[in-house]
Amino acid sequence: MFSVTVRDHIMIAHSLRGDVFGPAQRLHGATYVVDATFRREELDADGIVVDIGRAAEELRAVLADLNYRNLDDELDFAGVTTSTEVLARTIAGRIAARVHSGAMGPGARDLDGLAVTLHESHVAWATYERAL
Amino acid sequence: MFSVTVRDHIMIAHSLRGDVFGPAQRLHGATYVVDATFRREELDADGIVVDIGRAAEELRAVLADLNYRNLDDELDFAGVTTSTEVLARTIAGRIAARVHSGAMGPGARDLDGLAVTLHESHVAWATYERAL
Amino acid sequence: MFSVTVRDHIMIAHSLRGDVFGPAQRLHGATYVVDATFRREELDADGIVVDIGRAAEELRAVLADLNYRNLDDELDFAGVTTSTEVLARTIAGRIAARVHSGAMGPGARDLDGLAVTLHESHVAWATYERAL
Amino acid sequence: MFSVTVRDHIMIAHSLRGDVFGPAQRLHGATYVVDATFRREELDADGIVVDIGRAAEELRAVLADLNYRNLDDELDFAGVTTSTEVLARTIAGRIAARVHSGAMGPGARDLDGLAVTLHESHVAWATYERAL
Amino acid sequence: MFSVTVRDHIMIAHSLRGDVFGPAQRLHGATYVVDATFRREELDADGIVVDIGRAAEELRAVLADLNYRNLDDELDFAGVTTSTEVLARTIAGRIAARVHSGAMGPGARDLDGLAVTLHESHVAWATYERAL
Amino acid sequence: MFSVTVRDHIMIAHSLRGDVFGPAQRLHGATYVVDATFRREELDADGIVVDIGRAAEELRAVLADLNYRNLDDELDFAGVTTSTEVLARTIAGRIAARVHSGAMGPGARDLDGLAVTLHESHVAWATYERAL
Repeated sequence: MFSVTVRDHIMIAHSLRGDVFGPAQRLHGATYVVDATFRREELDADGIVVDIGRAAEELRAVLADLNYRNLDDELDFAGVTTSTEVLARTIAGRIAARVHSGAMGPGARDLDGLAVTLHESHVAWATYERAL
Repeated sequence: MFSVTVRDHIMIAHSLRGDVFGPAQRLHGATYVVDATFRREELDADGIVVDIGRAAEELRAVLADLNYRNLDDELDFAGVTTSTEVLARTIAGRIAARVHSGAMGPGARDLDGLAVTLHESHVAWATYERAL
Repeated sequence: MFSVTVRDHIMIAHSLRGDVFGPAQRLHGATYVVDATFRREELDADGIVVDIGRAAEELRAVLADLNYRNLDDELDFAGVTTSTEVLARTIAGRIAARVHSGAMGPGARDLDGLAVTLHESHVAWATYERAL
Repeated sequence: MFSVTVRDHIMIAHSLRGDVFGPAQRLHGATYVVDATFRREELDADGIVVDIGRAAEELRAVLADLNYRNLDDELDFAGVTTSTEVLARTIAGRIAARVHSGAMGPGARDLDGLAVTLHESHVAWATYERAL
Repeated sequence: MFSVTVRDHIMIAHSLRGDVFGPAQRLHGATYVVDATFRREELDADGIVVDIGRAAEELRAVLADLNYRNLDDELDFAGVTTSTEVLARTIAGRIAARVHSGAMGPGARDLDGLAVTLHESHVAWATYERAL
Repeated sequence: MFSVTVRDHIMIAHSLRGDVFGPAQRLHGATYVVDATFRREELDADGIVVDIGRAAEELRAVLADLNYRNLDDELDFAGVTTSTEVLARTIAGRIAARVHSGAMGPGARDLDGLAVTLHESHVAWATYERAL
C-alpha cells in the first residue's frame, strides 16, 4: 500500500455546543494544521500515488472555503458541532468530491482511500479515514 | 474511522537486561513523549470521539504513576524488561482499564481501539495498538 | 548567557482591523503555541535559570486569562490590533509583572530577560524580547 | 500489534520524467528524512520488536548506498521514475532483503511488516507499507 | 525587539568543491526548509513587524528563482560554493533587495534586521543574520 | 553573523538535589535532544562556518561520554546539580575544549561563539551560549 500526504492550514473561529466542551463552548478559534493522505494499492503509470504538487493545490482549494471564517456563521455548519473530528470528515468529504469529479485528473479516480488529520495544537489532533 | 490523539510526557530512569541492549544495560533514562490515540467507527452524540480535554486529563493521570521514577525499583515492573514497546503496552493497558471502568465517561465505553506511541528521541519511537 | 524555555498554547478568536490584513479582517481564530524564554547571565544557587515546572505553571496561569476567548470582546484589547506580535508583547508583559511581583519566587527577580514566541501555524511565528 | 520506528536521512539529486511532474522534470534534489517502521504481532523473548540501535544501523546501511548521489546516474534506477513513492518502495525492499538474509539477527525473521516513509519537506511525505 | 518568521522550502541539486566536503563533492541535492525572520525595534502603525501573508509571498518569490534547479548550472553561482551558509546569505541578500526596493511596501523599509535559516535535514541547519 | 547547528541526543539517569526540584529529586531520567550551534562572523575559505559532517562527529564524540549513564555516579558531576542548564554548559565546555585543541581542524579556531540547547521534552528546553 502506498500513500502521499500533503500539509496546509486554516485559521477559523467557532464555538462548540454541549456541556462536554466546557470552556470551548465560548466563541474561540483554532489554527488547524491539515494533513491530507491519499492512498492506493498500486502506483499509476507515472510511478506515483498522485502528483504532490497537484495534491497540495487541491487541499489548498478545499481549505480556502473555510479559511479566515467564523464557522458559527457558515450555512454549511448550521446546527452542526464543528469539532475537530467533524471538520476532518467535512474536509475529507470535499476532497473526495473533487477526486470523484475528476478535478484531480483521471488517474486520481483509482485512489483507494483518504485520511485527513487536523492538528489543533502541538498536543492534540484528530483523524478521519475513508475509502474513495 | 475516526481517531483523536493527545500528547504528554514522562521522564524515567531504568536499565534493560539482555545482551541485545548493549550500553542500555546500564542504568540510564529517557523522556518519553507519549501519544494516546482513541479510535471509534462513528462519532458520539456530541460529534466527537472523546473530549480532547478529558482524554488529556486521563493520559496525564495514567502517566503520573510513572513520572520521575526509576522503573528498576517499581514493583509493577519487577522482572520485566521496560523496553519502549513494553511501556507502550503498559500505558495502553492502564488507559483501557480507565475506559472500561467508566472513568472517561459512559460514552468512552463505545471506543473501538487505542494506540499508544512513545517517542524516546527525535529519531526513534514505538507504538502498541489494541482493541477496546 | 543561559535561558530556559517552556511551551503551552491558547485557542482564541479575533479579527484584525486594517486593509493590510486582507481576509484576516474577518472574525477568525488561531491556536497560538506559546514559548516563554527566561534569560539570566549566571545560574542561581540551585544551578538553574528558573525551575522548569514553576515556569510552566506561570505560563499556564498567564495564558488561562486569554484561552478560549474572543479577543474582540475583551476589555483589555479594546481598540487594540491583536496581531501575533502584539499578543506576544502582551503575554511577555504579564509574565514580567508576575516575575516582578515575586509570584515566581524571590530568585526569579534576578532574571535578565524574557522572550515570548507565538507560533500561529507550522509556517509562521512572531517573537517579542524584552529586559526584565 | 507493536511497531518500532527509526529515522535517518539522505540527500540526493534526480529528475522526474513525465509532464505530470512540471518543474520537477528539471534536475533538482531532495533531502529525504526516512522513517523505517518494523511491525510484529508479539514481542520477542527480549520484550522488543527489534533492537532500536540495530534497526538504526540497518537503516543507515541501506541509505548509505543512496546518499550523496545523483539517482539519474545510478544503474539501479535506469529507466525508473525515482518518485518519493518509488524510493520508499525501493528502500523498503532493501530493508526486507536484509531482514530475510538474517542481517538483522534471527529474531527479525519473525517481523510481520514494514513501512517506509520519506519526508521530502515539512509539507509533503510518502509511505510504502508491505508484509515481511 | 520584535520579529516575524515565515517558512517555505526549495528542492535543489548541487555539488560542493573542496576536500572538506567529502561525499558531498558528488552531485547530490537537498530540500532546504527556509525560515525568513524580519526584525524591528518597534511595531508599525498597524501593530505589526510586517504582514505575515506579505512576508510569505516575498519569501516564495525569492525562492522561486532557486527552486527545482541544479545550482551547478546557475550563472549566479558560477565559481561559488553553494554551502548551506552561502545559500542562506544569498537568500537574505535577495530578500533585503526586495525590502529596499519597496516591493514589500513602504513600511518594510523601517525593518532593522533579517535572518535566514536553511534546514538541510532534521539534524542540521545554518543561519545568516544581517542588518537591513 | 553565520551559524551552523547540528542535532544529536543522549539518554541519562540523574536526580536533582534541592526542594525547588520537587518530584525531580527522585532518581529519574531524560532524553536530551542536543543542538550545538557554531557561530562566526565571516565564512572560512571553503565558504562554511564548519563542515556539518565534522560538527556532527564532534558532537557525537562529546555526547558519547555522557550517554547511557547515571550522572549521579559520574565523578565529573560529584556534588554538582545536573540541571538541564548545567548540562548545557558542560557540553558547551567540552565542545569548546575540542575546538581549542584543534580536534575540529585549524579553521575551527576562528569560530566566534557556541550555543548548546538541550531539549528535555517537547515542551521544555534550555540553552547556554558562550564565546569561543
